[in-house]
Amino acid sequence: MPETPLRVAMVGHGFMGAAHSQAFRVAPRFFDLPLAPVMSTLVGRNVAATKAAAEKWGWAKTASDWRDVVNDPDIDLIDICSPGSTHVEIAVAALEAGKHVLCEKPLANTVAEAEQMAAAAEKAAAKGVFAMVGFTYRRVPAITFARDLVQAGRLGEIRRVQANYLQDWLVDEDGPMTWRLDKAKAGSGSLGDIGAHAIDAVQFITGQTLDSVSGLLHTFVTERPLLDESATKSGSIAGVAGSECGQVTVDDSALFTARLSGGAVGQFEATRFATGRKNAFRIEISGSEGALAFDLERENELEFYDAAAPANELGFKRILVTEPEHPYFAAWWPTGHTIGYEHGFSHQLVDLVNDLAAARQPHPSFAEGLQVQRVLDAVERSSDDGSAWTSTN
Amino acid sequence: MPETPLRVAMVGHGFMGAAHSQAFRVAPRFFDLPLAPVMSTLVGRNVAATKAAAEKWGWAKTASDWRDVVNDPDIDLIDICSPGSTHVEIAVAALEAGKHVLCEKPLANTVAEAEQMAAAAEKAAAKGVFAMVGFTYRRVPAITFARDLVQAGRLGEIRRVQANYLQDWLVDEDGPMTWRLDKAKAGSGSLGDIGAHAIDAVQFITGQTLDSVSGLLHTFVTERPLLDESATKSGSIAGVAGSECGQVTVDDSALFTARLSGGAVGQFEATRFATGRKNAFRIEISGSEGALAFDLERENELEFYDAAAPANELGFKRILVTEPEHPYFAAWWPTGHTIGYEHGFSHQLVDLVNDLAAARQPHPSFAEGLQVQRVLDAVERSSDDGSAWTSTN
Amino acid sequence: MPETPLRVAMVGHGFMGAAHSQAFRVAPRFFDLPLAPVMSTLVGRNVAATKAAAEKWGWAKTASDWRDVVNDPDIDLIDICSPGSTHVEIAVAALEAGKHVLCEKPLANTVAEAEQMAAAAEKAAAKGVFAMVGFTYRRVPAITFARDLVQAGRLGEIRRVQANYLQDWLVDEDGPMTWRLDKAKAGSGSLGDIGAHAIDAVQFITGQTLDSVSGLLHTFVTERPLLDESATKSGSIAGVAGSECGQVTVDDSALFTARLSGGAVGQFEATRFATGRKNAFRIEISGSEGALAFDLERENELEFYDAAAPANELGFKRILVTEPEHPYFAAWWPTGHTIGYEHGFSHQLVDLVNDLAAARQPHPSFAEGLQVQRVLDAVERSSDDGSAWTSTN
Amino acid sequence: MPETPLRVAMVGHGFMGAAHSQAFRVAPRFFDLPLAPVMSTLVGRNVAATKAAAEKWGWAKTASDWRDVVNDPDIDLIDICSPGSTHVEIAVAALEAGKHVLCEKPLANTVAEAEQMAAAAEKAAAKGVFAMVGFTYRRVPAITFARDLVQAGRLGEIRRVQANYLQDWLVDEDGPMTWRLDKAKAGSGSLGDIGAHAIDAVQFITGQTLDSVSGLLHTFVTERPLLDESATKSGSIAGVAGSECGQVTVDDSALFTARLSGGAVGQFEATRFATGRKNAFRIEISGSEGALAFDLERENELEFYDAAAPANELGFKRILVTEPEHPYFAAWWPTGHTIGYEHGFSHQLVDLVNDLAAARQPHPSFAEGLQVQRVLDAVERSSDDGSAWTSTN
Repeated sequence: MPETPLRVAMVGHGFMGAAHSQAFRVAPRFFDLPLAPVMSTLVGRNVAATKAAAEKWGWAKTASDWRDVVNDPDIDLIDICSPGSTHVEIAVAALEAGKHVLCEKPLANTVAEAEQMAAAAEKAAAKGVFAMVGFTYRRVPAITFARDLVQAGRLGEIRRVQANYLQDWLVDEDGPMTWRLDKAKAGSGSLGDIGAHAIDAVQFITGQTLDSVSGLLHTFVTERPLLDESATKSGSIAGVAGSECGQVTVDDSALFTARLSGGAVGQFEATRFATGRKNAFRIEISGSEGALAFDLERENELEFYDAAAPANELGFKRILVTEPEHPYFAAWWPTGHTIGYEHGFSHQLVDLVNDLAAARQPHPSFAEGLQVQRVLDAVERSSDDGSAWTSTN
Repeated sequence: MPETPLRVAMVGHGFMGAAHSQAFRVAPRFFDLPLAPVMSTLVGRNVAATKAAAEKWGWAKTASDWRDVVNDPDIDLIDICSPGSTHVEIAVAALEAGKHVLCEKPLANTVAEAEQMAAAAEKAAAKGVFAMVGFTYRRVPAITFARDLVQAGRLGEIRRVQANYLQDWLVDEDGPMTWRLDKAKAGSGSLGDIGAHAIDAVQFITGQTLDSVSGLLHTFVTERPLLDESATKSGSIAGVAGSECGQVTVDDSALFTARLSGGAVGQFEATRFATGRKNAFRIEISGSEGALAFDLERENELEFYDAAAPANELGFKRILVTEPEHPYFAAWWPTGHTIGYEHGFSHQLVDLVNDLAAARQPHPSFAEGLQVQRVLDAVERSSDDGSAWTSTN
Repeated sequence: MPETPLRVAMVGHGFMGAAHSQAFRVAPRFFDLPLAPVMSTLVGRNVAATKAAAEKWGWAKTASDWRDVVNDPDIDLIDICSPGSTHVEIAVAALEAGKHVLCEKPLANTVAEAEQMAAAAEKAAAKGVFAMVGFTYRRVPAITFARDLVQAGRLGEIRRVQANYLQDWLVDEDGPMTWRLDKAKAGSGSLGDIGAHAIDAVQFITGQTLDSVSGLLHTFVTERPLLDESATKSGSIAGVAGSECGQVTVDDSALFTARLSGGAVGQFEATRFATGRKNAFRIEISGSEGALAFDLERENELEFYDAAAPANELGFKRILVTEPEHPYFAAWWPTGHTIGYEHGFSHQLVDLVNDLAAARQPHPSFAEGLQVQRVLDAVERSSDDGSAWTSTN
Repeated sequence: MPETPLRVAMVGHGFMGAAHSQAFRVAPRFFDLPLAPVMSTLVGRNVAATKAAAEKWGWAKTASDWRDVVNDPDIDLIDICSPGSTHVEIAVAALEAGKHVLCEKPLANTVAEAEQMAAAAEKAAAKGVFAMVGFTYRRVPAITFARDLVQAGRLGEIRRVQANYLQDWLVDEDGPMTWRLDKAKAGSGSLGDIGAHAIDAVQFITGQTLDSVSGLLHTFVTERPLLDESATKSGSIAGVAGSECGQVTVDDSALFTARLSGGAVGQFEATRFATGRKNAFRIEISGSEGALAFDLERENELEFYDAAAPANELGFKRILVTEPEHPYFAAWWPTGHTIGYEHGFSHQLVDLVNDLAAARQPHPSFAEGLQVQRVLDAVERSSDDGSAWTSTN
């Protein structure tokens, strides 16, 4: 273990809090890190729930106000896992207080908030204080490897993108409202929650940005029972229904078409109504020299098509991305021994810690998070405007 | 074999001519038909090529002008397999001459032509003369069975459609121009050729129509070598390149979003640039009670998800659609012994012959073909109009 | 069409009769053949059933005694599709009468019969009269291509074979007896019916023979209702149950381990009790340089693993065996448009006709059929002998 | 966290040591445990390597002799992760000293050793000291769920088993010797290392034991370069080759056929020569009412076939075993968010801790481990005896 600590305070103790805690706990045991993450303080407004989570996950102490940790000289990194509506205030204050920040995605609920955050991050970076957005799927080995293949030119000129992030936890009309269905807290529905992943992953893999979009947001079920918070398990996405009803104010499905900066066109879908698809984040990218296909439900696999193969040997190759030669994998298990959802969080932490130790901007930066936010915003504006083509700039 | 013949003249001897000939040859050997198809006359402008095809495929004689067969009292059915630009003239004349018509899809190159054809078909039907459009994928057993499942309510309320018809035969920029890339002959590119299949199949399965669309047509490669017709094999799609160049005047990819009559939203893609996908016509339909997934590259399979299963037994079931209890299959082989692309043409013929013998309108009618044409047209208009939402009516 | 006819008489009109008839009907329409197959005479003991089948399938006339066609000077080829117990008598007589013979697999019910047949075939070959066994799966393009890959050295030294031919039509204990469950008629159960395919295909692909085996034959259900022949459809495998019972005298499952001539070891299974597997003939072959995997339920696909790929690009490639560059496929449809079970019979006929026209021994010869019979026999003997290792020579 | 500690000493710090450490670290953070595992002492002969591993994995102290921890009053559980040859001595001493024991599989290198261990375990159990074998795959949720389906009668009478544990890390002839290829240390090769998993998992799922076997052990490459220990990473399976050569004294492949206690027959294969298969542990189980299929390379999935479905809805259902209703999964992530190889070790620990706290025998017991050892031994004896059928009792 390295001698220099990286003392962390984490804000929020939902699903993301559990995943981030696991990364702090596990990553240093498999990777050689230049700094030793210390799980110092867990922050949450509900004192009892926060204490319980801290004990369960191994945080040394708790706080009920994020300002406490922002002002705590014994904290180096603020990890923001609370709902999108809280991001801007916490992140800006933390950066101004000289704390590094890891902020869950999407960066914010509005472009204006994201702009504030990116500006604060830029200012902080000049002082050696860095901010990163938690688009963790960049660190799924198969996705990192997909990016590597594109960068190596194996796909040639990229022309076509298909990205579908498919879940089905809202198919049941009697499923309850949660903060994720409330525009005030979540900013948007499937668009920001999982569509943002699709945008970031496609941009990351292709090295192109979505320059203009035509979008359609749709809500299938507009009224749902309110959440019974007392009956809902910490870390659960769907929650338990209570007896009163509330309005769903976000999209259930987001469909959009995009033109990418390098000339590709793409279709994107983010939905919580893809019956039977539990967490099927699927990406297919087609180029002049090859193609890639990925499905998060089989996250240890990447399908790669090399158009340069002889005519009778053409086909998608199912690569098990579990070799020591693959990104991140050498630290884990022997070939063929799979990893799961949580491991991407460890990889994200490893990269962050290495960058912080080297006084280097980690990716994705808040500027990148802001750009994704602009795309989300353009999709919403296009949807409001009869799906008219809309620039993301 | 039944005593009453159904004397057929077929116009065109390309890829579709080969497929239709196989149906005339094979269907009566496996299905009990009320009429005996007779392969009478093959029509083509190139006399030598037509004679060669007729001999190869087993047509009794040839003609070089379609008017000859339209006026031939010994012909009962005109089967139109020539390019889209020729459909309207032949079909209208044939129907007026009292011939039944089977016309390849898409019905026509323009809505105006399709309207003429639908009007002629309506008039003919009143006299017991029937017209049918060759959306043959309706007769792939897995697709017919998918429709059956929807009709039986197994999917509940349909909310989401994803349809991608993926080919890659244009990925190579040096691939030649063919009539399929010439707007004057083909009407459109991937949109009409394979997008039409996607529209028809989705409408067929769901029982809903696409009421409005937002579309994007895109051409990646705008100039290609002209086709060397002498070096190109009859029945080939891609052809052999010559030395001169021509302009591609159709779309390489068509992307569109649609609202369906029953409240579903859908994303559609038809492309010849999906590197590595040879003939991957993929459909996924999600409802409140279940879901379906299909891929034409595995056409003997249908995936079905029943949301009513116990929570620990949820999953997509891979149904091998090769049981005697499945549509059309009892006529073929024992369970598990697969059929291929061509068999849909036999099923189409079987249904047509049964309907004609019963003096019953076969489906899809020209009116249905016209409706698909209106959708294609709406996609084009939307694409021209910055992807603005466009009604298909 | 070629001028010289190949006048055929076919004995038997069950499932195989339907498949062979389709080949005679279709192959000449897609392939350029040096001889024109003529469907002359269909032979069957049940006069009415034979006449019905002949009319349905397009045979010019019928006979009730195979001796009639053996002695008919207007017959060139006898195609034997009747049960295994009849093969030896018909085939030997036909060869001695100077008729070419195509005989369904397995060649015979006993090694002694097969030896007689192989001897007759050898004698006939010296006079330009040829015999072939109908191991039709050799002509599934994916399997032929697998053989090509092995021959080209792409697998290196072959070390491991896994072959499972899985069906489930006997899982229901109330399913009826058919001739396939009667040792007197069928010779053996799953072993000879589908195990023989596994042996032949593995030997064909690897170029190695099974030199010794250790086997286990097992019958799960020893008594079944007798077949109601009047209620059973011609061409059906499973049949309809009557009210009386009979003894199952063949194996339901055959499991065996083998040593191959080139040093490989293999495991084989042929079973009609693989619940849920309808016709899953699966082969996996592992070599020092690569590997292959195939499943007949997805017969247009071959999975190929090239161990020479870079460490991060290793994986099984799903090759859609539908390119013009693949065996047999150029004659059929454009790339990605699949073929089915029946097409292998056309390919078999094409090869047979080409060989006959060239006065060349077609493969597999009766000598090869005899060798498979010896392997089947060795498996039975080993099973009787407590699975002791048993030579196949 | 519970107040009562479970103080652990772990012997060995190879691949298994890393996996077990992760379980001690992680399981208490996701599951409510009645005892708090404490990572007290890591034992290894190489002092420096042991210290390094202890620091990396978070063990409080180290010891170089396992006797130290066996005699340490502050240790409650001895976790044996060292090579098979060391198991008997350590386990028996630990049990006699009143320590609970978790011992990696296979239980021992010989039946005699396993008998000693089982006897010691039985004696200890009478005093409330318990022993467990680490057949961790029992705790892969899909495998536990498979067992549940069988127990619930969903497969009916089980008739057929196919189990293949496929790896390919020895395909390269120049790959080095490791202790796993040395009979003196490892007891056997693929048979004991991965074949033991196949035996245990099949017995666990079916509730039947392998009563008799016919086996074949085979070594493809009999001489290999010796391992360069200094260049080989701790936790690696394959290792780095040095310049001298050694004899491979274990099997590369183990093939065996078995009769199970409930009447099923099965084929088993364990091999390190399945080119392209990295860790493909595949199990298919066929019964009179249903079937199951599993592949460890896709360990979050179980395929289930219900023969009671309507004839047109038969098929294998791909169940994503990630629902809260599935074994162990409620403790982890939301549905569809996958887990990996290491999670089975956490589940194993959870079950062990719950059993120890309840003074209840955990499974699999040493008696079960002994029974697996007897099967392994019977396979070896059968192989030596020309694959003759051999009882496992």
